[in-house]
Amino acid sequence: MRVELLTVGDELLLGDTINGNAAWLGRRLADHGVDVTRSVVVGDETDVIVEAVTAALGRADAVITTGGLGPTYDDLTRDALAAAAGVPLVRDPELERRLRERAAAAGREVREMALRMADVPQGAGLLRNSSGSAPGLRVELPGGVVYALPGVPFEMRTIMDEVVLPELAGPPEVARRTLRTAGLWESVLAVRLAEIEAMDGVRLAYLPQPAEVRVRVTVAGAGTDVWDRLGHVEKRIRELLGSAVYGVEDETLDRVVHRLLTQRSATAAAAESLTGGQIGAELTAMPGSSTTFAGGVVAYSTDLKRDLLGVPGDLLAEHGAVHPDVAAAMAEGVRDRLGATYGIAVTGVAGPERQDGHAVGTVYIGVAGPGNTRIVTQPKLPVPGPGPETRDVIRRMTVVHALDQLRRALLGLAADPAAELARDDREESG
Amino acid sequence: MRVELLTVGDELLLGDTINGNAAWLGRRLADHGVDVTRSVVVGDETDVIVEAVTAALGRADAVITTGGLGPTYDDLTRDALAAAAGVPLVRDPELERRLRERAAAAGREVREMALRMADVPQGAGLLRNSSGSAPGLRVELPGGVVYALPGVPFEMRTIMDEVVLPELAGPPEVARRTLRTAGLWESVLAVRLAEIEAMDGVRLAYLPQPAEVRVRVTVAGAGTDVWDRLGHVEKRIRELLGSAVYGVEDETLDRVVHRLLTQRSATAAAAESLTGGQIGAELTAMPGSSTTFAGGVVAYSTDLKRDLLGVPGDLLAEHGAVHPDVAAAMAEGVRDRLGATYGIAVTGVAGPERQDGHAVGTVYIGVAGPGNTRIVTQPKLPVPGPGPETRDVIRRMTVVHALDQLRRALLGLAADPAAELARDDREESG
Repeated sequence: MRVELLTVGDELLLGDTINGNAAWLGRRLADHGVDVTRSVVVGDETDVIVEAVTAALGRADAVITTGGLGPTYDDLTRDALAAAAGVPLVRDPELERRLRERAAAAGREVREMALRMADVPQGAGLLRNSSGSAPGLRVELPGGVVYALPGVPFEMRTIMDEVVLPELAGPPEVARRTLRTAGLWESVLAVRLAEIEAMDGVRLAYLPQPAEVRVRVTVAGAGTDVWDRLGHVEKRIRELLGSAVYGVEDETLDRVVHRLLTQRSATAAAAESLTGGQIGAELTAMPGSSTTFAGGVVAYSTDLKRDLLGVPGDLLAEHGAVHPDVAAAMAEGVRDRLGATYGIAVTGVAGPERQDGHAVGTVYIGVAGPGNTRIVTQPKLPVPGPGPETRDVIRRMTVVHALDQLRRALLGLAADPAAELARDDREESG
Repeated sequence: MRVELLTVGDELLLGDTINGNAAWLGRRLADHGVDVTRSVVVGDETDVIVEAVTAALGRADAVITTGGLGPTYDDLTRDALAAAAGVPLVRDPELERRLRERAAAAGREVREMALRMADVPQGAGLLRNSSGSAPGLRVELPGGVVYALPGVPFEMRTIMDEVVLPELAGPPEVARRTLRTAGLWESVLAVRLAEIEAMDGVRLAYLPQPAEVRVRVTVAGAGTDVWDRLGHVEKRIRELLGSAVYGVEDETLDRVVHRLLTQRSATAAAAESLTGGQIGAELTAMPGSSTTFAGGVVAYSTDLKRDLLGVPGDLLAEHGAVHPDVAAAMAEGVRDRLGATYGIAVTGVAGPERQDGHAVGTVYIGVAGPGNTRIVTQPKLPVPGPGPETRDVIRRMTVVHALDQLRRALLGLAADPAAELARDDREESG
């Protein structure tokens, strides 16, 4: 089964909107063993949409369109699909009734323009939309089938999961899993995983983000065997990468930390400088985080590191704010003052300017726990020259490193995953 | 001049990477008056890339490709362009020399695979890359010209700005500007801007994000007149929308607030609950924010609102943490304790569960300034049913509303832009 995606909307060509729908659809379909072979974006023009749908069905078995189903006159997907099928648009009385009811419930007349949403290509199927007012459409064309979904991500996803995927996806012919790693560079991963790359029918893809790398494993085959084989491959990868693997699929670092804290009935508190609050924001992203996150202090200025966190004034006077002992004192201070089980702290230089003689990218992380306090020096960035994104990247890397160090402390792991692997290798060969 | 984009990479079809490059290119080209008429994503297959490039040049004058120029064997854009042009790949001695030098400088042998980056289609031009090691390529084909750029965003952007845009973009035939608004719903904007929509040769696009809407104005015409006309249109829009317009183009709310604070030699401090640190993260995004941001307190638990921010215990006991007076006390507390000119505070319910009898989406914002303290109730969300994104959206809306209220306080504006507009309308008609 080959599927192409067609996203409709001038705003995407102009770059006002990033095509998140296509990425979501690609991932969803891949997870169900359906290959997306091409993804096309066109503007709001009926002729162009007709041509793009027809060309796509010349190559693929099905096309999923998103966008162009709304009420305004630049919503042209309905018109294009009717033209491609050579049928007129007809008004669906049931859809019209629902639109009128909705307007009445809101105490207003329905606008004529809004009723366009009740027009469907003659003979088209309606795809139930349990999240919104306009359904998706299913149109059979000579070359294959078109599923037309709304551009609103929430509605698109609902229709996809509830209606389209069950129709499109047979039993998968490949098994895929994404392992999430933190703390090891991509090149280190690639060297360690060379034996996996060499296996027949196994493919690895490295998906780097600041300070973390997702490793996507694909195993070809059929039936339940393929999942067994994937299980074996995953087990071997985990042996090779050790504790650098922190989760699978959508299991982000903040979720892992939230789970570990919950299991231990523990709480965390954050003391931040260069990250400005991003660590706290991550630790409160999960529902229910009020049970695991006590609170935080953003001590951006040196004075506040003393006043709010109790970092000794002479330490700051002697070394400035960017120093390993300051990170440790911040972590202990926030743990103590907020009454949390763990304190996590960061201090460093996000740039663009050097600070107190320290290079951009110099960052120290402190983790204070029930037994002890650890200090970690963040590995220096391969900074892509001074650029507008450097500051953002350093802040993001610092957040990831900090969460990962909290995870490692919670699990009783050594701070450096590479050192741990080197030790394992020595033991294995010795 | 019609340009199509071709993004190459399996990771995009699989949805592991969102196509941010295409969005950036679309925006950049639109700003220079060049229309992107289509954007296509294909996987790492030579034949498919050849076919896609050829088809694109059947419709457009130029194609910009991104991706597939790296050293690994799934980097196939070079091979595809050579095949499309009917020429062999030849090794460029100067590029080879540079790759060997780079490897030597890092103290290692160059790998044979890496030397692929020195192969170029015979006759192709090299596009200078001042940010990285591999240049872009310029290949003339019968239907038009192909600019092949690397997929690494930083390098792609550099080559685009330094080499490709000056070549592609003539004087613009349309003038575009994006006005950024906060605090008014899209439907309110559309009603107020009906007279602009009705103007000849003027188009408006509404680009909504949580709690803010960007309004993109396009004026057709030629020469310098079109920019004069855009200036007039912009002036009228600003009259109609009043202080809801906070900036233009890339001028985000955090930048505006940073600028206003700098001009006043003032500082801000943030007291956050449901946003967990995101307001502080925004206020420290700009380089130089250490002069305008004092610090912050994330008081996620009720006890910490009392202990760290001095919110009266009886107030919390009587009303709980989600109350307008608590927002005010938090703002005054953080202003006072951190010695800032302004204190900004938020308290509310991000969900997914109700809290102390308050509905999800209930949020109070407090702004404490030199003269007074203001409390604002965040407008209730049109929440799209309880869903996985609701919590994120409410948190994001709260950040935007808080920054906007800080802006309005700094400018001495009323808290509610809609009320202000209603008053202006009465005065105009009276």
